[in-house]
Amino acid sequence: KTNFKIAVLPGDGIGPEVVAESIKILDSIAEAFQYQFDFKYGLMGAEAIYKTGNPLPDETLEICKASDAVLFGAIGDPSFDNNPDAKVRPEQGLLKLRKELGLFANIRPLKTYASLIEKSPLKREIIEGTDIQIFRELVSGIYFGEKFTDEEAGYAYDICKYNRDEIAPIVHMAFQEAQKRRKKLTLIDKANVLDTSRLWRKVCKEIAAEYPDVALDFMFVDNAAMQLILNPKHFDVIVTENMFGDIISDEASVIGGSIGLLPSASIGKENALFEPIHGSYPQAKGKGIANPVASILSTAMMLDYLQLEQAAEKLRQSVEYAIENKYVTVDLNSEQPYSTSEVGSFIADYI
Amino acid sequence: KTNFKIAVLPGDGIGPEVVAESIKILDSIAEAFQYQFDFKYGLMGAEAIYKTGNPLPDETLEICKASDAVLFGAIGDPSFDNNPDAKVRPEQGLLKLRKELGLFANIRPLKTYASLIEKSPLKREIIEGTDIQIFRELVSGIYFGEKFTDEEAGYAYDICKYNRDEIAPIVHMAFQEAQKRRKKLTLIDKANVLDTSRLWRKVCKEIAAEYPDVALDFMFVDNAAMQLILNPKHFDVIVTENMFGDIISDEASVIGGSIGLLPSASIGKENALFEPIHGSYPQAKGKGIANPVASILSTAMMLDYLQLEQAAEKLRQSVEYAIENKYVTVDLNSEQPYSTSEVGSFIADYI
Ligand SMILES: CC(C)[C@H](C(=O)O)[C@@H](O)C(=O)O
Ligand SMILES: CC(C)[C@H](C(=O)O)[C@@H](O)C(=O)O
Repeated sequence: KTNFKIAVLPGDGIGPEVVAESIKILDSIAEAFQYQFDFKYGLMGAEAIYKTGNPLPDETLEICKASDAVLFGAIGDPSFDNNPDAKVRPEQGLLKLRKELGLFANIRPLKTYASLIEKSPLKREIIEGTDIQIFRELVSGIYFGEKFTDEEAGYAYDICKYNRDEIAPIVHMAFQEAQKRRKKLTLIDKANVLDTSRLWRKVCKEIAAEYPDVALDFMFVDNAAMQLILNPKHFDVIVTENMFGDIISDEASVIGGSIGLLPSASIGKENALFEPIHGSYPQAKGKGIANPVASILSTAMMLDYLQLEQAAEKLRQSVEYAIENKYVTVDLNSEQPYSTSEVGSFIADYI
Repeated sequence: KTNFKIAVLPGDGIGPEVVAESIKILDSIAEAFQYQFDFKYGLMGAEAIYKTGNPLPDETLEICKASDAVLFGAIGDPSFDNNPDAKVRPEQGLLKLRKELGLFANIRPLKTYASLIEKSPLKREIIEGTDIQIFRELVSGIYFGEKFTDEEAGYAYDICKYNRDEIAPIVHMAFQEAQKRRKKLTLIDKANVLDTSRLWRKVCKEIAAEYPDVALDFMFVDNAAMQLILNPKHFDVIVTENMFGDIISDEASVIGGSIGLLPSASIGKENALFEPIHGSYPQAKGKGIANPVASILSTAMMLDYLQLEQAAEKLRQSVEYAIENKYVTVDLNSEQPYSTSEVGSFIADYI
């Protein structure tokens, strides 16, 4: 297959700017490798609310469902965050999209780059050689359990729930990834307090029997929040539930000192979505200073997913070349910064 | 008042060793300041399960209720952690005690010590001058909401719930603390996803009107997990719900590079409990290497609570003197380490 339908959802904040660079790069990959990418754009997030009243218009959902893969920018707008009464929120669009596409596994690879190690808030000896792959469950748990607020009584609740079928697929995925790596899997949970965590532990233990070459260990989420900073090299593959994954994976993203570089993939049975982890970063919007590399490396994950491994490999090499040669945005080099689109063009040209 | 009833719950792992040093110190404070402390010991945690089958025997609860303050060591035992089927767990004892005593606010002060700053996994320039006070709600939320597991159907849930009356008291406490400090309060929540978080935001905003001199800001928990490492000096006072507080406060505990120094207080309307944050650390049990300072500084917080500010101040000075003169355990000085009881005696003698 050489012909792919790509749904493009630029979203909010710096989303459109960084996604534009990914498109530029896919164009040069199409040329270099003789592929064809058909891009269909969709509205999503605060952008979509302003234009249609709906954070995920049906049309956008249809485009995504019909696609081979979705490229996504970012979501979120401060005008909604500070309004607890807002009935429609940008995030609902992303959550609904995840659910509708069944994107049960959010995957985040974390590595350190030799030339950027000094950028980290952590000491070199702590982080050098860190290489973690986080699997976060993405379509269940407290995010999707029933929610209820009784304004009068001044009372709210959120239900966290899991069943075996929601846990097993991502646990298998994580074990399989561990087999390809250093053969170590850590389940992060709170099994000393939560029933759902105890179910996660149980299911993990059962599934472990099918992967005897992988060492499974368990870590409470509070301890994990410490160990990620004290000793990140302890970790190989991590698997965890939705809310803990949200917190832990963002925490872990600071290790390398360059959040603007970190990609993610959200994988389902029939669909997949690729997005930088940095979020909408509204303060930087329109200034041409956003780092496009996280979006570009998300695009590389997309190429892997589409089984275009050669192109993915080429793209990753190009990114590394740009970074090692300091062809980077202001977050990584304040002395001689390049703009978002300069960095994107440099990488596209290198391909 | 010069006569105080102190309930002492040594608990599991290194709990008994570190609590013994706190008692030693209270004895020398009693002598120096002419106070009287009557200690009543109670069983709690795995210890209590082994001896009575109950992680919080009624007798222990009665001792605590009748006390002016509770000194607590640590809880937890690996033999329970790895058994998802255990029906009785040490942690249940601690959770029940918190609930029965109504200890709604867990308070953790975090500071860096000049002489220990190099111990931190974070760089000096990131952490120097960090001074954070965390208020974690401790008797509600997902910890105490209904839990349910259907083994057959392979299904579990945990309910997170909050009402105004559970949120307001700790928010007031946090605002009042901020008034005494740098006048900045950050609510950590996940208001873009959770109904309970939106209620927290709402209640905080309302209460903010009573503290016009304090600047209130909001931060999503995933972002907070990053900012605590990227820029800990951003924070003055933090207030948050139970589960987020568990994760965030443990994460923040790594900043200073010396978890063995960090105390905590859990405050209720009529009772209060003081414990080191380090937990039971079973690997170190009985070796005489546990750092007693966290327990000793928790004792200082207890003295403050009992309005023995002078004694508390003296105790803190003694601890600082010990630390600055490297009279510390192996975690802080591996070249010339002192034992748990040597450090305790040094501080007791200095008083
Ligand atoms: C925007 C928000 C709903 C989302 C989440 O919490 O899942 C984001 O933080 C993420 O991690 O993708
Ligand atoms: C032991 C455990 C139940 C407890 C908690 O999660 O509250 C501990 O982690 C703490 O923070 O005191």
